[in-house]
Amino acid sequence: MSSTSTATSCKVVLAGSIAKKLLEEVTAGLRTLETPPRLHGFLANKDPAARMYADWTAKTCRENGFEFILREVDREVLEDEIRNANDDDLVDGMIVYYPVFDSRRDQTLQWTVSMYKDVEGLSPQLISNMYQNVRFLDPSTNLRKSILPCTPLAVIKILEYLQIYNTFLDYGKRLFGRRITVINRSEVVGRPLAALLANDGAEVYSVDITGVQRFSRGSGLKQQRHEVNDVEGWGLEQCLPLSDVVISGVPSETYKVPTDLIREGAVCINFSSDKNFSPDVKEKASIYVPAIGKVTIVVLLRNLLRIVQNKPQTNGSA
Amino acid sequence: MSSTSTATSCKVVLAGSIAKKLLEEVTAGLRTLETPPRLHGFLANKDPAARMYADWTAKTCRENGFEFILREVDREVLEDEIRNANDDDLVDGMIVYYPVFDSRRDQTLQWTVSMYKDVEGLSPQLISNMYQNVRFLDPSTNLRKSILPCTPLAVIKILEYLQIYNTFLDYGKRLFGRRITVINRSEVVGRPLAALLANDGAEVYSVDITGVQRFSRGSGLKQQRHEVNDVEGWGLEQCLPLSDVVISGVPSETYKVPTDLIREGAVCINFSSDKNFSPDVKEKASIYVPAIGKVTIVVLLRNLLRIVQNKPQTNGSA
Repeated sequence: MSSTSTATSCKVVLAGSIAKKLLEEVTAGLRTLETPPRLHGFLANKDPAARMYADWTAKTCRENGFEFILREVDREVLEDEIRNANDDDLVDGMIVYYPVFDSRRDQTLQWTVSMYKDVEGLSPQLISNMYQNVRFLDPSTNLRKSILPCTPLAVIKILEYLQIYNTFLDYGKRLFGRRITVINRSEVVGRPLAALLANDGAEVYSVDITGVQRFSRGSGLKQQRHEVNDVEGWGLEQCLPLSDVVISGVPSETYKVPTDLIREGAVCINFSSDKNFSPDVKEKASIYVPAIGKVTIVVLLRNLLRIVQNKPQTNGSA
Repeated sequence: MSSTSTATSCKVVLAGSIAKKLLEEVTAGLRTLETPPRLHGFLANKDPAARMYADWTAKTCRENGFEFILREVDREVLEDEIRNANDDDLVDGMIVYYPVFDSRRDQTLQWTVSMYKDVEGLSPQLISNMYQNVRFLDPSTNLRKSILPCTPLAVIKILEYLQIYNTFLDYGKRLFGRRITVINRSEVVGRPLAALLANDGAEVYSVDITGVQRFSRGSGLKQQRHEVNDVEGWGLEQCLPLSDVVISGVPSETYKVPTDLIREGAVCINFSSDKNFSPDVKEKASIYVPAIGKVTIVVLLRNLLRIVQNKPQTNGSA
């Protein structure tokens, strides 16, 4: 008979520890710059959550050597203010605290932000690059990296930190062999995340209430970018027992990923502000990350740094 | 439509490159010693393969600062010669080139080698430690590591090199979540290898012509060491599609692991002297290691170094 232990084998990893390591990389990059990058935050609503996020951005910037200016403006003039910031050489990056109009007009605002100042990575060209697995803004020289949306990129950075990305494999293929379930297929997080993971070589099962889609670069990663296929008749019953990694972001206080379907030793990551995993997930998972918010804010600073690093150093044509 | 590429995504990794890195660690350890470790090799047969292995050991020792003495002796006096070497303080380690009698008498020879000089890790106490997941010779102080058999340990070192061991997880649990098929359940390689992998947290499917056994530490790795269960009705059809890693060591020129059953992105390792994988494995695998011999010989030197490092530095009681 073997001895048994009451402690679980699961490592619970808090976002703070991951954020700390990522922040060290960001501040190291910052020290190579002559002037601190300047971020403008546009607040044009009365949403307390938006103000809290703005305050949090301000604090994180201040503590880490970035310059943050909160611009409280009337929402009717916001579009013009964004255009002014696009043209202002003193503004390196900007973030808009949504919702502003809470309608499709918010998307117009989003598209007004210059892709060269968009720390959130939501500009149409950036989004298009992401889905097409185009990683640079200057494909001929490959010096200026395209900016990725913050929350999906935060999940990627977490998977790198947890060594789920295998750096022995070539860049761009480091998830080859991994099967990942992403529960949530929203346009802002779930779908771009599934695309990013599949572009890096994973087979991704993207799950929402309408069903399951497989995002994959196909046998032997022969495709240069992922393709998407509906998987008829599949649900979590089929996806979870296969998946090395389970990522959930369901905005519901009551939703729980069924622990009994999760495979032994899986890596479980929650990006919902609600807890999508039951406490007993620790009986099965090898690693459990209960929240990711602190990583997301560092990724925002990382995007800002990258935007500054992307600027042509000489009188380039871009 | 996505573009396609004719090149495969598979990295073919040759044992030489893995052996080189491991050898650097061994020679770094060697430099901390005052005198080079001395290995005795006992050759008591006319087997050309045994002589070749002896010549290879001699060359590798000579090139890397270990002292190697080939002892060619009559097989009838070998047992006494081993006993003499056990008592000789100038002999740090020994290796016997089998087969000698090619009968159970060879096992008696094997058991005659002192466990404190057994670079092959085949002494009963070492084998017992390995199966019991006891990693030290001095469980109270945990300073003297138990010696593991060379070929299984070579496979472990290869999996570490390939980052299949996740160093983010705790030592002893770094394969948690991995499913590994080992084709071969011999007493010298396949079974100890399955045990080692399971003790490190993997779920292992050990396959031979008699069927499939699962080696596992159970749900949440609650068991301190692995247990073994027959899996009725299973074959490669069931094991391979689940397995992240496929390790094969079938001594047959014609045997091939069926590529169509291997999952996308699997890591495939061959430890047979025959090629157990078809060339088309590269269409599916993320990593393919076609042979491991060069790593095994470095592991032998590593064991010799460890034996010397295990010696009490003071007038200890051991």
